[in-house]
Amino acid sequence: MVPAPNDTRAVGRCLLFLGDVTESGFAKTAFGLRDWAGERCVGELRLPGATVTTGLPSLSARQAAAQGATAIVIGVAAPGGTIPASWVPALAEALAAGLDIVSGMHVRLDQFAVLKEAAARHGRRLIDVRTPPADIPIASGRPRAGRRILTVGTDCALGKKYTALALGRGLAARGLDVTFRATGQTGIMIAGSGMPIDAVVSDFVAGAAEILSPAAAPAHIDVIEGQGSLFHPAFAGVSLGLLHGSQPDMFVVCHDPARSHQLGYPGSPLPSVETVIEQTIVLGRVTNPAIRCIGVALNTGGMDAAAAQAAIDAHARRLPYPVADPMRGGADFERLLDACLEMP
Amino acid sequence: MVPAPNDTRAVGRCLLFLGDVTESGFAKTAFGLRDWAGERCVGELRLPGATVTTGLPSLSARQAAAQGATAIVIGVAAPGGTIPASWVPALAEALAAGLDIVSGMHVRLDQFAVLKEAAARHGRRLIDVRTPPADIPIASGRPRAGRRILTVGTDCALGKKYTALALGRGLAARGLDVTFRATGQTGIMIAGSGMPIDAVVSDFVAGAAEILSPAAAPAHIDVIEGQGSLFHPAFAGVSLGLLHGSQPDMFVVCHDPARSHQLGYPGSPLPSVETVIEQTIVLGRVTNPAIRCIGVALNTGGMDAAAAQAAIDAHARRLPYPVADPMRGGADFERLLDACLEMP
Repeated sequence: MVPAPNDTRAVGRCLLFLGDVTESGFAKTAFGLRDWAGERCVGELRLPGATVTTGLPSLSARQAAAQGATAIVIGVAAPGGTIPASWVPALAEALAAGLDIVSGMHVRLDQFAVLKEAAARHGRRLIDVRTPPADIPIASGRPRAGRRILTVGTDCALGKKYTALALGRGLAARGLDVTFRATGQTGIMIAGSGMPIDAVVSDFVAGAAEILSPAAAPAHIDVIEGQGSLFHPAFAGVSLGLLHGSQPDMFVVCHDPARSHQLGYPGSPLPSVETVIEQTIVLGRVTNPAIRCIGVALNTGGMDAAAAQAAIDAHARRLPYPVADPMRGGADFERLLDACLEMP
Repeated sequence: MVPAPNDTRAVGRCLLFLGDVTESGFAKTAFGLRDWAGERCVGELRLPGATVTTGLPSLSARQAAAQGATAIVIGVAAPGGTIPASWVPALAEALAAGLDIVSGMHVRLDQFAVLKEAAARHGRRLIDVRTPPADIPIASGRPRAGRRILTVGTDCALGKKYTALALGRGLAARGLDVTFRATGQTGIMIAGSGMPIDAVVSDFVAGAAEILSPAAAPAHIDVIEGQGSLFHPAFAGVSLGLLHGSQPDMFVVCHDPARSHQLGYPGSPLPSVETVIEQTIVLGRVTNPAIRCIGVALNTGGMDAAAAQAAIDAHARRLPYPVADPMRGGADFERLLDACLEMP
């Protein structure tokens, strides 16, 4: 892995900060940490007015520190993409209580004078996981050893991170040598390292993906968290640079069967799973001629068990690949894991 | 146009700095300015050892200033991508002679203490055209008025900028309301403004392309300079973000018939013109369902006139579009201009 300024492996136990948010869609980072790094989350801190909760114990910064937390993690995104003034006193108090602050926002923590000053006074760190490392190279395009699986999608925010984490966990449970490679802020906080690919200057995106999953032993598997979609009107360039630099041998298409349009883009219909498979192969062949689809991950989070199985079965009848909701596990997911191990 | 820190419209007449380069491939910026903004170039300044020349008069900084130059433009890229120490004294002397410095490198001019100090002392500006404006929005994906033509390519560095400039000039000569939109450092210096698209953070590339060619009168035509190629192992993400944000109604594929592999990537064969057309349409439809190819621009710079015409004719027999080398003009190029004006 690259040595990066956003390395959070030393963070250890943490307190999840939820601000005063009232929509669970803004708390993806907090939920991601609870679901995938729960053993490191001692509790949550909410401001008056907050209605979203992770279900973890409510703790003050001092109580969290007493329980072994070393950092407070901003687990929510504010609508404007920055840190509202109403959050700053609580964050400064966390520094005074002995906690570092970890943030995944585009805005840097040290741009808030109060936080910069408090961090210096209390000897704590301000950790921005969305700051890419310096000196990322231009992509070489050269093949490298090791096997790679990339999760791609029909849209943003429909399960590429959870699918990659579930595949990583499932393959590790089978005894394989596997590493989850994070490409977004939440994934980086869960894994402790990674590459905030959407914050990299565009000329260097494919190069950043190359150093994120370096050459490895031939049997080693990197499971790389996908970003965006090749058909997204704003983020497709990120997705294509990540595809080219990752040089995946295999990919899994993530899809939400309940979604008809790109999230937040009512004028942009969702591409079909088949279209995404076809284009991912056409474009992925530029850096890996052997690229192939090995399965489809459906996000059935909004359905009951019977409806979810019906959706999985309907897609499985139509598509010549294993189809599963990785979060539901079961025989479908085991078949998807089997597919990761089949040699072409 | 966006108000940008790289706005060089005020620069006016300039002196082309060639450093000590010995390979003409490194002097693309100087040649571009000579060819497309020759009326603003008073001469060239070369250091001992240089073998490349633009053919313009050799002038000192003081002589250039006396002839009305207000800036020295770094017209070459150094192999390492930075400014070698051997160039700094001559550049500092140009500041003392009353010239601003204009640079298109990734490295910023003010990172050189000697230049920063000399600029302050002499009241001159250090202008980095590769610095994108602040506060670029995420792309909206919403259609906007006006017509747009994008040049795309089978590779980097084979004529997308020259083709866009030639189309802009040709359409203007026919009395049309047309604007050349620059996306790279040389184009920005020629046009006086633009968007250094490869220096934009990847999340914002499509948004940057949207503000580069804003809504305009229905009959207005923006001719947008393309970058990279959808099939380039390092830069395809830039190309795709630019395609989506530009929302072109029409595109021209630029191709070098003498090239078999991507420049500098011997492992990456060039895609066919047909493949680029097909993929540009499939992916371009995400933001403009009416996107269509209107022609092919061949770079025949390395051929004599007979060989060039033979190459143009061979491509024209195979492809259902006008084929021309825009730098050779003639009837073929007039047909390409005609195609820009046909309504679908």
